[in-house]
Amino acid sequence: MDELQKRLSALEARLRAVEDELALYRLMTSYGPAADSGDGAKASEIWTEDGVYDADGPGVMSGRGAIVAMLSEEGHQSMVPGCAHLNHPVVIELDGDRATAVGYSQVWRTDDGKHRVFRLAANRWEFARTDEGWRVVRRTNRRLDTAPAREILRSTPRQ
Amino acid sequence: MDELQKRLSALEARLRAVEDELALYRLMTSYGPAADSGDGAKASEIWTEDGVYDADGPGVMSGRGAIVAMLSEEGHQSMVPGCAHLNHPVVIELDGDRATAVGYSQVWRTDDGKHRVFRLAANRWEFARTDEGWRVVRRTNRRLDTAPAREILRSTPRQ
Amino acid sequence: MDELQKRLSALEARLRAVEDELALYRLMTSYGPAADSGDGAKASEIWTEDGVYDADGPGVMSGRGAIVAMLSEEGHQSMVPGCAHLNHPVVIELDGDRATAVGYSQVWRTDDGKHRVFRLAANRWEFARTDEGWRVVRRTNRRLDTAPAREILRSTPRQ
Repeated sequence: MDELQKRLSALEARLRAVEDELALYRLMTSYGPAADSGDGAKASEIWTEDGVYDADGPGVMSGRGAIVAMLSEEGHQSMVPGCAHLNHPVVIELDGDRATAVGYSQVWRTDDGKHRVFRLAANRWEFARTDEGWRVVRRTNRRLDTAPAREILRSTPRQ
Repeated sequence: MDELQKRLSALEARLRAVEDELALYRLMTSYGPAADSGDGAKASEIWTEDGVYDADGPGVMSGRGAIVAMLSEEGHQSMVPGCAHLNHPVVIELDGDRATAVGYSQVWRTDDGKHRVFRLAANRWEFARTDEGWRVVRRTNRRLDTAPAREILRSTPRQ
Repeated sequence: MDELQKRLSALEARLRAVEDELALYRLMTSYGPAADSGDGAKASEIWTEDGVYDADGPGVMSGRGAIVAMLSEEGHQSMVPGCAHLNHPVVIELDGDRATAVGYSQVWRTDDGKHRVFRLAANRWEFARTDEGWRVVRRTNRRLDTAPAREILRSTPRQ
């Protein structure tokens, strides 16, 4: 019986890790549809209330309010509809109630019916498990052709 | 013993949800390689026999036969080889034997060795678990720079 | 009790398949951040020591050393920083301690601040479970607008 209990507990822990990884994929991915449909509040809610989005265009945004403000600006809103924020692909690393991910983001926009990539960047994501589920504590985004982007990509864990 | 049975049943249900999510990713992803290698029949088989593909170019296609017909047209075949239908990234939501997904699709084509994006779209997918496994009941595809695309993206569930 | 043991063993096998699929996604995805940050050794380590990378530009590279050499060449290094090797999306098929995947790869580069796709290709991946974890035994990469690419895409398993 003890043996069965142990196997069950091991399975539960492993399954939780798998569920966490899929939940984190969904969390990152869900930023795009919210931002691209002009719903800044929903987009900001993938962060914790005081989460940080450090992007080398708009700078360091602390807290959901600052992220909503950036997404409400004319520069962002003028792309809607027609833009696509694609946070893929990424490599996730779990550590209990914390997690990190490293990967790419693409911002597409459409002008006069023509699609083009506007921005490619490297991203480092830090997550915490909260009462609301997994949330972003800090996202760092650097344009791909910069030294900081290279440092972010270098921090991807060996598989 | 009862306790163990309960934990096992809970694990089985959670694991099935994880397997379902991965199966749905594979199902959506497999559309591309079939369409891009000119195998319309295989591409159509991700739908149920009477599944619907509602795309704002070719219109509403009802049933696998209509989807095969669209993929057999000169407009599609002239892109093969050289096109890439990428159904990513998406956010999946399970509900027992039904599921939905919301996300992006990209169609790339290659002309004279040059790649370009031909179409970016928002997609809403509705799935059913069938005897053949998960199948698409309805896929709605709208060009990214349209109001309906925005509505599709807005329907992404909060994570 | 026997019944419980059986259910547990079945769960363990299914969970292992799910973990394998996610590990293979991470493995393929991790090629990009290594290659794009100029760390050829790390990029080569997703292969087995004598793994093969057969790409229709640089040709057949046998063993990690040959892959490091290709990534050290001026042609590759001149793209760093600013390039993105995106190995997505793919469909994975498991077979015990072996696995295959079929999908797409994109190579982006940035010149004078402008991003463009440099190469779209079809990929077939063959994996083995090793003491180091899953590793690539052979990766075959063909430009999307070629007949071999079409054959690769055709080999995607029906879902």
